[in-house]
Amino acid sequence: MSNLQFEQQYQGRALDRASIGSRYRDVRAQSERLCAPLETEDYCVQTATFASPPKWHLAHTAWFFETLLLKPYLEGYREYRPLFATLFNSYYDTIGTYHPRPERGMLSRPTVKEVYEYRAYIDEHMARLLDDIGHPDHADIVMRTILGMNHEQQHQELFLTDLKYAFAYNPLKPAYAELPQPDPTTAASLKWLSFEGGVVSIGHQGEAFCYDNETPRHKTYLEGFRLASRPVTNSEFIEFIEDGGYRNPDFWLSDAWKIVCREGWRTPLYWQREDGGWNYMTLAGMRPLDPGAPVCHVSYFEAAAYARWANKRLPTEAEWEWASKGAPVKGNFVDDGYLQPVAGPQSEGLQQMFGDVWEWTQSPYVPYPGYHQAHGPLGEYNGKRFCSAASLANRMAS
Amino acid sequence: MSNLQFEQQYQGRALDRASIGSRYRDVRAQSERLCAPLETEDYCVQTATFASPPKWHLAHTAWFFETLLLKPYLEGYREYRPLFATLFNSYYDTIGTYHPRPERGMLSRPTVKEVYEYRAYIDEHMARLLDDIGHPDHADIVMRTILGMNHEQQHQELFLTDLKYAFAYNPLKPAYAELPQPDPTTAASLKWLSFEGGVVSIGHQGEAFCYDNETPRHKTYLEGFRLASRPVTNSEFIEFIEDGGYRNPDFWLSDAWKIVCREGWRTPLYWQREDGGWNYMTLAGMRPLDPGAPVCHVSYFEAAAYARWANKRLPTEAEWEWASKGAPVKGNFVDDGYLQPVAGPQSEGLQQMFGDVWEWTQSPYVPYPGYHQAHGPLGEYNGKRFCSAASLANRMAS
Amino acid sequence: MSNLQFEQQYQGRALDRASIGSRYRDVRAQSERLCAPLETEDYCVQTATFASPPKWHLAHTAWFFETLLLKPYLEGYREYRPLFATLFNSYYDTIGTYHPRPERGMLSRPTVKEVYEYRAYIDEHMARLLDDIGHPDHADIVMRTILGMNHEQQHQELFLTDLKYAFAYNPLKPAYAELPQPDPTTAASLKWLSFEGGVVSIGHQGEAFCYDNETPRHKTYLEGFRLASRPVTNSEFIEFIEDGGYRNPDFWLSDAWKIVCREGWRTPLYWQREDGGWNYMTLAGMRPLDPGAPVCHVSYFEAAAYARWANKRLPTEAEWEWASKGAPVKGNFVDDGYLQPVAGPQSEGLQQMFGDVWEWTQSPYVPYPGYHQAHGPLGEYNGKRFCSAASLANRMAS
Amino acid sequence: MSNLQFEQQYQGRALDRASIGSRYRDVRAQSERLCAPLETEDYCVQTATFASPPKWHLAHTAWFFETLLLKPYLEGYREYRPLFATLFNSYYDTIGTYHPRPERGMLSRPTVKEVYEYRAYIDEHMARLLDDIGHPDHADIVMRTILGMNHEQQHQELFLTDLKYAFAYNPLKPAYAELPQPDPTTAASLKWLSFEGGVVSIGHQGEAFCYDNETPRHKTYLEGFRLASRPVTNSEFIEFIEDGGYRNPDFWLSDAWKIVCREGWRTPLYWQREDGGWNYMTLAGMRPLDPGAPVCHVSYFEAAAYARWANKRLPTEAEWEWASKGAPVKGNFVDDGYLQPVAGPQSEGLQQMFGDVWEWTQSPYVPYPGYHQAHGPLGEYNGKRFCSAASLANRMAS
Repeated sequence: MSNLQFEQQYQGRALDRASIGSRYRDVRAQSERLCAPLETEDYCVQTATFASPPKWHLAHTAWFFETLLLKPYLEGYREYRPLFATLFNSYYDTIGTYHPRPERGMLSRPTVKEVYEYRAYIDEHMARLLDDIGHPDHADIVMRTILGMNHEQQHQELFLTDLKYAFAYNPLKPAYAELPQPDPTTAASLKWLSFEGGVVSIGHQGEAFCYDNETPRHKTYLEGFRLASRPVTNSEFIEFIEDGGYRNPDFWLSDAWKIVCREGWRTPLYWQREDGGWNYMTLAGMRPLDPGAPVCHVSYFEAAAYARWANKRLPTEAEWEWASKGAPVKGNFVDDGYLQPVAGPQSEGLQQMFGDVWEWTQSPYVPYPGYHQAHGPLGEYNGKRFCSAASLANRMAS
Repeated sequence: MSNLQFEQQYQGRALDRASIGSRYRDVRAQSERLCAPLETEDYCVQTATFASPPKWHLAHTAWFFETLLLKPYLEGYREYRPLFATLFNSYYDTIGTYHPRPERGMLSRPTVKEVYEYRAYIDEHMARLLDDIGHPDHADIVMRTILGMNHEQQHQELFLTDLKYAFAYNPLKPAYAELPQPDPTTAASLKWLSFEGGVVSIGHQGEAFCYDNETPRHKTYLEGFRLASRPVTNSEFIEFIEDGGYRNPDFWLSDAWKIVCREGWRTPLYWQREDGGWNYMTLAGMRPLDPGAPVCHVSYFEAAAYARWANKRLPTEAEWEWASKGAPVKGNFVDDGYLQPVAGPQSEGLQQMFGDVWEWTQSPYVPYPGYHQAHGPLGEYNGKRFCSAASLANRMAS
Repeated sequence: MSNLQFEQQYQGRALDRASIGSRYRDVRAQSERLCAPLETEDYCVQTATFASPPKWHLAHTAWFFETLLLKPYLEGYREYRPLFATLFNSYYDTIGTYHPRPERGMLSRPTVKEVYEYRAYIDEHMARLLDDIGHPDHADIVMRTILGMNHEQQHQELFLTDLKYAFAYNPLKPAYAELPQPDPTTAASLKWLSFEGGVVSIGHQGEAFCYDNETPRHKTYLEGFRLASRPVTNSEFIEFIEDGGYRNPDFWLSDAWKIVCREGWRTPLYWQREDGGWNYMTLAGMRPLDPGAPVCHVSYFEAAAYARWANKRLPTEAEWEWASKGAPVKGNFVDDGYLQPVAGPQSEGLQQMFGDVWEWTQSPYVPYPGYHQAHGPLGEYNGKRFCSAASLANRMAS
Repeated sequence: MSNLQFEQQYQGRALDRASIGSRYRDVRAQSERLCAPLETEDYCVQTATFASPPKWHLAHTAWFFETLLLKPYLEGYREYRPLFATLFNSYYDTIGTYHPRPERGMLSRPTVKEVYEYRAYIDEHMARLLDDIGHPDHADIVMRTILGMNHEQQHQELFLTDLKYAFAYNPLKPAYAELPQPDPTTAASLKWLSFEGGVVSIGHQGEAFCYDNETPRHKTYLEGFRLASRPVTNSEFIEFIEDGGYRNPDFWLSDAWKIVCREGWRTPLYWQREDGGWNYMTLAGMRPLDPGAPVCHVSYFEAAAYARWANKRLPTEAEWEWASKGAPVKGNFVDDGYLQPVAGPQSEGLQQMFGDVWEWTQSPYVPYPGYHQAHGPLGEYNGKRFCSAASLANRMAS
């Protein structure tokens, strides 16, 4: 799943500033619409230190608007409840202390109802702030509101993945919703598409919203390369498993092999072999594995091992970004209602560059040349995370 | 708080077997009455590995009746839901596997409503089983039902202490209920009561219910000793703190001192010094410390350090039990509605031996001479825990 | 192995105070004689947090005399090297800070040679102090010196067990020394000896040295009991293993079963099944298991599980101590040179109460009634450890 | 310190193959010469999981020749001692199992003497193998021997840094050797040197030895940049400290700040503030900090925080490598005997690119475009580590 699923509505053109208020309401309503199928209990649960309870996502995204917009810009604004500043700060050291992340699921209060009241209070004041088009800081307010909406969409995506994790953890394997089930599919045959090298420009271009870590646009040099026409599929990944992929250290990075051995990895997360066939957890509960769909929820370590096993390599981020140039931003997004990757079309050219799955690249998560990290909380948003983690793509290159 | 708070109704006489059905309903209803003030969210939260969510307590106590009574004795009984056998088994290895204790708070399903439905199903079938007084195993059924009711009362007590822990953890310090607040009290002056030594008999006597770890009645030898007329109070414990009690290794056991240093202990759990005074967490939220009430929620290590500081010692379990002989089983129990220890009466003789607080002794938790541990789950109930933990009492002896 | 192996020379009569100097030299020389077979490298190694390097034992025992005798009593004494006060303090909080126990093997300096020089310096000054029989504190000096010698003998025993642990850890399985190897033995047949109950007195009696935790002599009540005539043997323990003893939770305490599962226990420490037979690590390297010798290096958990499997129980400490009354203090001690338990004699009555093996009892390590813990370091020696650990004995009772 | 310190002798020209035997002896003798000042005890000590005992370095480097040369290529070669294959394998999964890295210091055997005997045995057989210039695999043998020599030089460097760590850990702060102490120095004033951008080629060029991770030579694009004329000095780093650098989260990466808080970082490793001045640990023991010398033993996190504080950034690896082109490979190397960075010369142009210190860059440790990882142990040497760690450089760029 990709946050592109959510951001598409603002892609390709600058936001019409007059309509910011209604956009704001749309995004906020989407968060609550996604929560509609939940039981109250589901709002509270945290099953991993890297995941957060739905209730926390709802409150944190409200806190974001309160902290970065209402407090500095809305005259006479009265903080909703002082302790929320700590409870719903995620990781902003320059703002203040925050509740420990692994313990977000240990708070029964505020209740779900109280969190919705908090959101309503924020929304009411945000409406007042956005309506004030004569505000001396109106441009900044709009810019920060757009950031806040994108931030909330990121949390909508986190909400869905965290929820899947929580439901997969539960032996009862609950379903989030009745979802359409595609018939078992066959993927398009994999083709290798060639790209010429040379000095190319990558990074954000145009007036649409982007995060600071997508800037600045800059030049880089690429050798000619080939890129797979579509992501690796579930049925291809089964071949890797059946060829002993999880048992041969030669395919794995050193740090990876330690984890494979220590935790007994034998399949991707969520997969279960039953009666000779394969099932996996979806947001509609356990279902038969779809052979033609892109493999999903594999770690960087698994993606890299697969590529080495296949005598290929993962693309670099620059290759992926360059190749994606001009590809239309369309695909299987959240609005399509599958909430699961599906097999792509049998067409020519690069497929499924958008929608369906995040893709691992071999490139670490580091700043683009010339990146400038602001001081204060806006700089913390992305800048302080520029360390260690790999970027995303499990499409192969060679 | 003591499970004596709950057991009193069955103390002093054998249970009238004909009335077992109505007793069963009373105990079960008490669990649900105690939960009445909760929000749905409160049912789900687990803030320590040693604590359990209220929802889990409700389901586990139902599981106990299902597993030890309905499955073996009720003909044609159909298990409510197979996975519950694992989810709500606490620690019975001879019955089967169980969900990891530290992860009881990670299950949003079954919902609270579903747990109440589970309880209703069990109650309906238990009623049928208890009504069948011609059942060939009726005596066993009554015996196990009495155990199950006492088991449920233990969990009622755990429910209240776990809930206090969860609410104290929450920075919002929610209140479980509006509780009567006693005026600040002064405890009766402490007197030292003398007891003659000799060979005495301790252990359960009579026909009323007891746990197997209270058997058998046996002889033991006691030197003459003196016992404090009442437990140590909060104001006495403040003297220990103000005399540097938490900073002097000479008072502490070796294992204790490591924890004091590593975790920075400076006061009992739940205490906060504010503006020169002391407050502590109660089930009614933060309140001023009551100087005359018995000190509560101190660990064995703190009780032992206090006694060494005071040039006294904790009593042995045998001394405490012998001294309690004949003391009337009355005091501040759950039904009194304080849900908090209060100062005892200004009377002669031993006070507050029942109600108010569990008391630490210096005796480890080991079997009485002649104790027999049954095989199977009933033996696991207590027998396999006979290791390492100290018994309870923070009254001093000398 | 037992520290009785070393203490026997002082048992049964008060130490002749005039000869304290020569006794001191004997004990000190014994420590160094035991180290004679070591390579320099062996002096430095620590393979568990609960073990210490031989070099550390040698230095710590010197530190004990320096700290408790030379510094307070020898006029003009000049501390050997100030940092040693921290490096070789084991756990005396009332004296000062100490180097972390798990990191005793991380110090290459002082070298072994320097530690021997330290010991020589201490010995030279101790000789001077002990010779001064007119010293106003001579009685205290003798008392503390006797404690120091017994302390050093305890460390001689720790030295041998720590060394066995270190050599067993090493895949090369080095031998400490060429030791006599007894032929495979058959133990005497096990008989059950009866003891009458009643009020008995236990605890140290007489003028010989004892530790403070063996005091005071006091009365206790015992029911009549039977005690096995000899410890459990290796061949008897094999029956437990072959009957699935390590796989059945019903035999194990709750805390034990968690460890059995987590660490995959299947045999006692040091045992290896090879080619159908059993070998174990000894101080002479790997050797065939002697079927008739007492089983050794089993934990309390294993001893308790064995007893439950055998439908017996471990004796209490009071039973063991009472039964041992009058038994002659003779057996297989360190001077016999086996450094390993051997089968006992085929005689009547209780056998092997001394020598060969420490024996688990079911009694926790708690103070005798009336025990007084001194303040300061002498009180820390034993008093602060009175918590949690079980006492010793793997002889069965019933 | 840099492995360039050791490799210089082979830089700039292809190794004369006829003289490989004498080069081999030189490198091997250097390892033993570096160990000459050690006590036997120093050979055994491991003070961190990332460090190894000197004895292990000596044995592992012998194992490398035995495993990659003698076993596959020397006819009739008899393995020195089978268990060494496990004990001295560092991390080669495709070769076999290996002793756990954090427990390398827990092996007292083989002794130091035995390790030297092992080395002599390997050397004797290596001499025989290298002399056989008619061997059908002679070219491979020479290639692998050159790799083995460079490998051993890497371990010589690790030996010195591990030893410093071990001696700094020891409260006695032992000195490895009497080393020349430079007078307090003043660094040359810092200048910013400009480099033009464009498509440049980096990666190894020429016939001299290089590691596979320095290949292949490839093109990359650089914007114009400026590079500091010399590394950051100790006195500059003091400014950062005194300006609150370690207390302001705004300067630190997210992962860094967690460590700074958890471990209480306040200075670089080895620094101590005493009496208003600064000292640090050197291989000659504690010494006054040299203000003009490059700051050393700072982590990537500290280097990055410093750069952000200074409103600069760390260079990328490509910038550093491109700037270093043509700089003569000279500087303060191990043969100069300081074993410590010193202030550079007061000359024009880039200084101290070689010798003195490893330098942090902002670039993660990832393969060059086109890198090919061999299968088997030679591929494991570097290829499987291409994950997560940052490259080296604490020179600033802007």
